Amino acid sequence: MKVSELGEFGLIDLLDKMIADAQINKASPDLLIGIGDDTAAWKCTEQVQLATVDTMVQDIHFTLETISWEELGWKSLAINISDIAAMGGLPHYALVALALPDNTESEDIAGLYRGMIDIARQYKVAIAGGNISRASRVSVTVTVLGGCPDNKILRRSTAKSGDTIAVTGYAGSAAAGLEMLKKKLAFRSKITGYLKNAFLHPVPRIEEGRLLVKHGITTAIDTSDGLLADLRHICEASGVGAKVITDLIPVNEIVKASFKQKALELALGGGEDYELLFTGNARNIAKIRQVIKCPVTVIGEIVKSTPGKIELFDAGGNPVKTGRTGWTHF
Amino acid sequence: MKVSELGEFGLIDLLDKMIADAQINKASPDLLIGIGDDTAAWKCTEQVQLATVDTMVQDIHFTLETISWEELGWKSLAINISDIAAMGGLPHYALVALALPDNTESEDIAGLYRGMIDIARQYKVAIAGGNISRASRVSVTVTVLGGCPDNKILRRSTAKSGDTIAVTGYAGSAAAGLEMLKKKLAFRSKITGYLKNAFLHPVPRIEEGRLLVKHGITTAIDTSDGLLADLRHICEASGVGAKVITDLIPVNEIVKASFKQKALELALGGGEDYELLFTGNARNIAKIRQVIKCPVTVIGEIVKSTPGKIELFDAGGNPVKTGRTGWTHF
Repeated sequence: MKVSELGEFGLIDLLDKMIADAQINKASPDLLIGIGDDTAAWKCTEQVQLATVDTMVQDIHFTLETISWEELGWKSLAINISDIAAMGGLPHYALVALALPDNTESEDIAGLYRGMIDIARQYKVAIAGGNISRASRVSVTVTVLGGCPDNKILRRSTAKSGDTIAVTGYAGSAAAGLEMLKKKLAFRSKITGYLKNAFLHPVPRIEEGRLLVKHGITTAIDTSDGLLADLRHICEASGVGAKVITDLIPVNEIVKASFKQKALELALGGGEDYELLFTGNARNIAKIRQVIKCPVTVIGEIVKSTPGKIELFDAGGNPVKTGRTGWTHF
Repeated sequence: MKVSELGEFGLIDLLDKMIADAQINKASPDLLIGIGDDTAAWKCTEQVQLATVDTMVQDIHFTLETISWEELGWKSLAINISDIAAMGGLPHYALVALALPDNTESEDIAGLYRGMIDIARQYKVAIAGGNISRASRVSVTVTVLGGCPDNKILRRSTAKSGDTIAVTGYAGSAAAGLEMLKKKLAFRSKITGYLKNAFLHPVPRIEEGRLLVKHGITTAIDTSDGLLADLRHICEASGVGAKVITDLIPVNEIVKASFKQKALELALGGGEDYELLFTGNARNIAKIRQVIKCPVTVIGEIVKSTPGKIELFDAGGNPVKTGRTGWTHF
């Protein structure tokens, strides 16, 4: 059934029922009012609150030919949870603002919510409210509210000269996935699966963010714009520069094998990996590497320099030049 | 300069500077991190938190021919502050997600923010963060976070048989303004000014919402979908029906004089007045009428009936039939 036949309030009822049936909001005993009033409401204890919003727009961030509605639901919530991870917090509540063409199938929106409910359950996030509008293209704007249980926050502005720079997971895998989908590149199914997943099914590093806080790290960002662009955000906010050894950058073997020379460019400039890029003293980072469940790789050092200036070197100490250095919207 | 020339981060810097220069966030001493990190962050005291999101989409909710960018900025924040008012709370923080065509003039976005800063200052709201995306049409999605200082909330679900139904201000003025703009109706300038303002410059009833809470009211909604549709939301959520005396409905003299017979239809079915529609015992409402600064009009009574059923009568007790009964998106 088209959403135009179901009607705005019919669609809200359908989504409300899906959330009730999935019982995801039961994990949030402080939620007082979910969908169905003028606002959501919850009891808040005395702590630092975090709030972030991100939009996925059809034909800008995704095309319906290459993403399933379930994946769109997962990803639109995941990218916001990732922002909470980058602050060292825990996600608690989500509000979902949908803009939909009136010939959208309600079953597709149910799929979108299945994806969202899936990740909400895994991260104990209540889907507490939202809004539905008509529009010519699909867009999904998710707000996520979270908190810092210990009132310590990871910021972009606290990096200092001498800090070691490290990153979780792999860089460039999501960009490689996007490249494969855009150019319709054909690989073996295991490779295709890895690359698609990296781009369409990011896994926010909440547990890892909490671990950084506990080990005295104060500076982090999630790699949504691209490794170099996000490192530049840290450097600009902190008034420092950085030296990066490109040979150290963790590129997954699948990406290396499939994209050859282009792999480094994808790793430096490609966005949407949603890994944590952080800085801190070398000893703390060494301890973190011992206890964390994902790969953590040291890639360089924060230095006194023009704020935001990043210099790249190979393992032999020779300067490296790059082209594209991050995703920007305009 | 087009936003495509200024760039995403250039635009963020411009808006960040506007907010800093306006010093609106200084009224929020608990704000720890505003624009420029992965999330906004603030210190939260132990209280009930409120959260709401609403989107204004070009050519659905507004056309750039009939709304100025300043008015768009004001209204996109106002409609969310109104949701907080309908819960009896105070607004505190806003996140702004913009979707913009890349040929948008950055001066227009500065205008949008001037309108937003204007209302943010009046209601002591910090603009704490946001997001900017490219899109084919303009859309403005605002999330507002607020709180209930006394932990009492106005809900939709607590109306009971015997409650008196009342509404603040006038019904149908915004719909009359929309009608005038859509059909290019020509009136005297004072009338045009009133009608345009009613539609483009809604004034959220925060103070009035707080007053309702203090006088023991527990049931309210803001009239965004239209008087009857919003009364139906209350009745459905509360499992009750309602009787409304249409002759009592407060229609502004300007709307009566300019729209004649159509005025009642606009008042019953037209949305976007952003007044407070509430129910409670007659004595409390009489007391509220004595102390509140805006008109408060009793329009009917909650009754035992099929949940959501609304019956209309004229002053003589004769049934009244209506056509359109509220705004729905599909």
